[in-house]
Amino acid sequence: MTKHLLTMSKLTIEEIDQILIDAEAYRKGDGWKSKNSLFVANLFFEPSTRTRFSFEVAEKKLGLNVLNLEDSNSSTQKGETLYDTVKTIEAIGSDALVIRHSQDHYFQEIIDHVSIPILNAGDGCGHHPTQTLLDLLTMKQEFGSLSGLTVAIIGDIRHSRVARSNAETLTRLGAQVLLAAPDEWIDDSVLGEYVSIDQAISQSDVVMMLRIQRERHEHGTTQIKYLDFFGLTKERASKMKNSSIIMHPGPFNRGIEIDSDLVEAPQSRIFKQKRNGTFVRMAVLKRALHHL
Amino acid sequence: MTKHLLTMSKLTIEEIDQILIDAEAYRKGDGWKSKNSLFVANLFFEPSTRTRFSFEVAEKKLGLNVLNLEDSNSSTQKGETLYDTVKTIEAIGSDALVIRHSQDHYFQEIIDHVSIPILNAGDGCGHHPTQTLLDLLTMKQEFGSLSGLTVAIIGDIRHSRVARSNAETLTRLGAQVLLAAPDEWIDDSVLGEYVSIDQAISQSDVVMMLRIQRERHEHGTTQIKYLDFFGLTKERASKMKNSSIIMHPGPFNRGIEIDSDLVEAPQSRIFKQKRNGTFVRMAVLKRALHHL
Amino acid sequence: MTKHLLTMSKLTIEEIDQILIDAEAYRKGDGWKSKNSLFVANLFFEPSTRTRFSFEVAEKKLGLNVLNLEDSNSSTQKGETLYDTVKTIEAIGSDALVIRHSQDHYFQEIIDHVSIPILNAGDGCGHHPTQTLLDLLTMKQEFGSLSGLTVAIIGDIRHSRVARSNAETLTRLGAQVLLAAPDEWIDDSVLGEYVSIDQAISQSDVVMMLRIQRERHEHGTTQIKYLDFFGLTKERASKMKNSSIIMHPGPFNRGIEIDSDLVEAPQSRIFKQKRNGTFVRMAVLKRALHHL
Repeated sequence: MTKHLLTMSKLTIEEIDQILIDAEAYRKGDGWKSKNSLFVANLFFEPSTRTRFSFEVAEKKLGLNVLNLEDSNSSTQKGETLYDTVKTIEAIGSDALVIRHSQDHYFQEIIDHVSIPILNAGDGCGHHPTQTLLDLLTMKQEFGSLSGLTVAIIGDIRHSRVARSNAETLTRLGAQVLLAAPDEWIDDSVLGEYVSIDQAISQSDVVMMLRIQRERHEHGTTQIKYLDFFGLTKERASKMKNSSIIMHPGPFNRGIEIDSDLVEAPQSRIFKQKRNGTFVRMAVLKRALHHL
Repeated sequence: MTKHLLTMSKLTIEEIDQILIDAEAYRKGDGWKSKNSLFVANLFFEPSTRTRFSFEVAEKKLGLNVLNLEDSNSSTQKGETLYDTVKTIEAIGSDALVIRHSQDHYFQEIIDHVSIPILNAGDGCGHHPTQTLLDLLTMKQEFGSLSGLTVAIIGDIRHSRVARSNAETLTRLGAQVLLAAPDEWIDDSVLGEYVSIDQAISQSDVVMMLRIQRERHEHGTTQIKYLDFFGLTKERASKMKNSSIIMHPGPFNRGIEIDSDLVEAPQSRIFKQKRNGTFVRMAVLKRALHHL
Repeated sequence: MTKHLLTMSKLTIEEIDQILIDAEAYRKGDGWKSKNSLFVANLFFEPSTRTRFSFEVAEKKLGLNVLNLEDSNSSTQKGETLYDTVKTIEAIGSDALVIRHSQDHYFQEIIDHVSIPILNAGDGCGHHPTQTLLDLLTMKQEFGSLSGLTVAIIGDIRHSRVARSNAETLTRLGAQVLLAAPDEWIDDSVLGEYVSIDQAISQSDVVMMLRIQRERHEHGTTQIKYLDFFGLTKERASKMKNSSIIMHPGPFNRGIEIDSDLVEAPQSRIFKQKRNGTFVRMAVLKRALHHL
């Protein structure tokens, strides 16, 4: 069976556990490497430095050959559908596809018609499973287990791929999710309990701040005052429990959703998350390709 | 002697045969691979997903190092000529160049002044020899020999790199070429016999549909009606001989020059063509580099 | 200690000598190669074919894995600072960074906060140390030693990264620098003696022409007449000493700052410079990474 990675909700708890175990092995320098000159194509129809580089490092560390397509160079300019682009790249010789696309659930029209795995690197406002997996790995490294943790997700809940996916998965894994957002960014379809930002910060083991996605909404809270209004200020951070950590999916806006000094403060795991991203992506690539 | 690949007309029949034999060997997993860390630069001054990826897969399967240049990143923005770009990249250390350029015969000004092979990946409305070679390979796989085949080329003959190059080569190899086009796209300099579209379809072993090149002409038959007027409808396809196949150089416009359902129908070899593209490009790279 | 390469002025004479020795060894096919699957990211926030390709060939010849970022694909579109991009790419897994950026001294804010080496591939109107190093290597190959040479730097002194960096380094290494420029492009902060263009050409061992950087100034000498006014015409070149050579950092404008026929004339080393660029970049990458 083709091992797509589309949304967190399609992974069983056992599959999630195995990915995190494999990722941790890669962190220690162990694990499967390809010996067969396989090819992976990274198709990014939205710009993303960190996710593309992270996948590319993961692919090359596994000994895979890498093809990179970024939007502006695409034959889609000539009217080709995503489906046909994908079928074509499969025929040319790619053994797996990593895709980021602005359309929610872009993969629906594809997965029944390709025989190579699709790894979702982000679809619209929908899903971003490797981001969730790297967040889980980071929390597991800190706290040993996810069950029983309290995780606060704070900020632009409505427009965040990360919020929805993390909230669902964390709940499933036995963590408690607290949500805090300005009124206009509350989204009741995201799992979790809405509380005040101060309560979220003081009660949680993990304080996860979301990026203000300027490009996704035209109106919104003015940036100047956002930090005081709903960002992680030093004063708010001082109310965190001693053992609690700060996370952020990045790219972050220093001084907007998080005080600049907190990005690299002792309780921050923001750059550790990036490091873990590479290991998690190695693990999902292994899952998709190790039988070849 | 430097083994450029510029136009089909510069290849002898023996050279074409050898390329097809080598390509078929690569399909079976055999053939020359580079052991010397050679470099190939892909210089694409026009966008093209499929051709660039196909060359890149071919290069990496041969063990070559790959450099990719796409137009918008080029020093040509600073007023450098193509000739100087090519000479510079040769000096930097590339052992061969794959070039796509919008100017017809861009290679004329270059080939006498470089000592590394140029592989033409498409010039203006002129030539696209690896496309022809992959079409030949596909037909040879189906029918064993090209001599005696009847091949119909249908659609925008005037603006197609593929039509001219395929028609000339097929004629030289002993195939009969039938052409069918709306009046405004007839081009008498392309070898072959113009017939009605219905005659072309019913009499040929290969029905090769051409893409409607929207970006190359401003006026033309309206797209809405093109399929009925001059596209491959299911009704027209039902008049094909039982042993006949459908080909298309891609990217195709579903529902314009070809009914969407026919793209992946049993008689279609459209995605097989893509697969063969990689093997043919391996063969022409071998031809250019195997002595190194 | 992290072996950044930021400006020529931060390299000791001994370090410069060692880089040139290592580069010459690479030219002969010798020298360190990476056996540890290290990664280098090339971050180009300004377009540059030749410098990026030269670094990429150097990296791949050393057995390094390469990540390429070009401006338009960057997360900096989302408001991320260069500092955070660099920290992120370090975390993802890059062992060194090659950066070109339009801002003078972009590296100042970074170097104290990263533990991986930064190699400057050009900052604003400031520095371009590998260009200077390849120029030095080319002169050393020709003349054996740099001490005692007379080098003329001619043209747009004011806006040239090359002029400032070369003039300082050549002076430090015991060469005499002559400068010649139209009045509006004289810059007294560049080391050397201003003389007439005719004196510069007739008295020097090396005639180094600078590119007219059209994109860096809006007004200036009209291009039509620039060749006669201040370019290297054949008549001026005929006044060169027999043993003297022509150099140009490229990309050059044929017929503007240099007569087109002189680019590939016997006394020109312009394409040899490009070749040396690859070897020099291998040497500075070795310097940064050989302990890993």
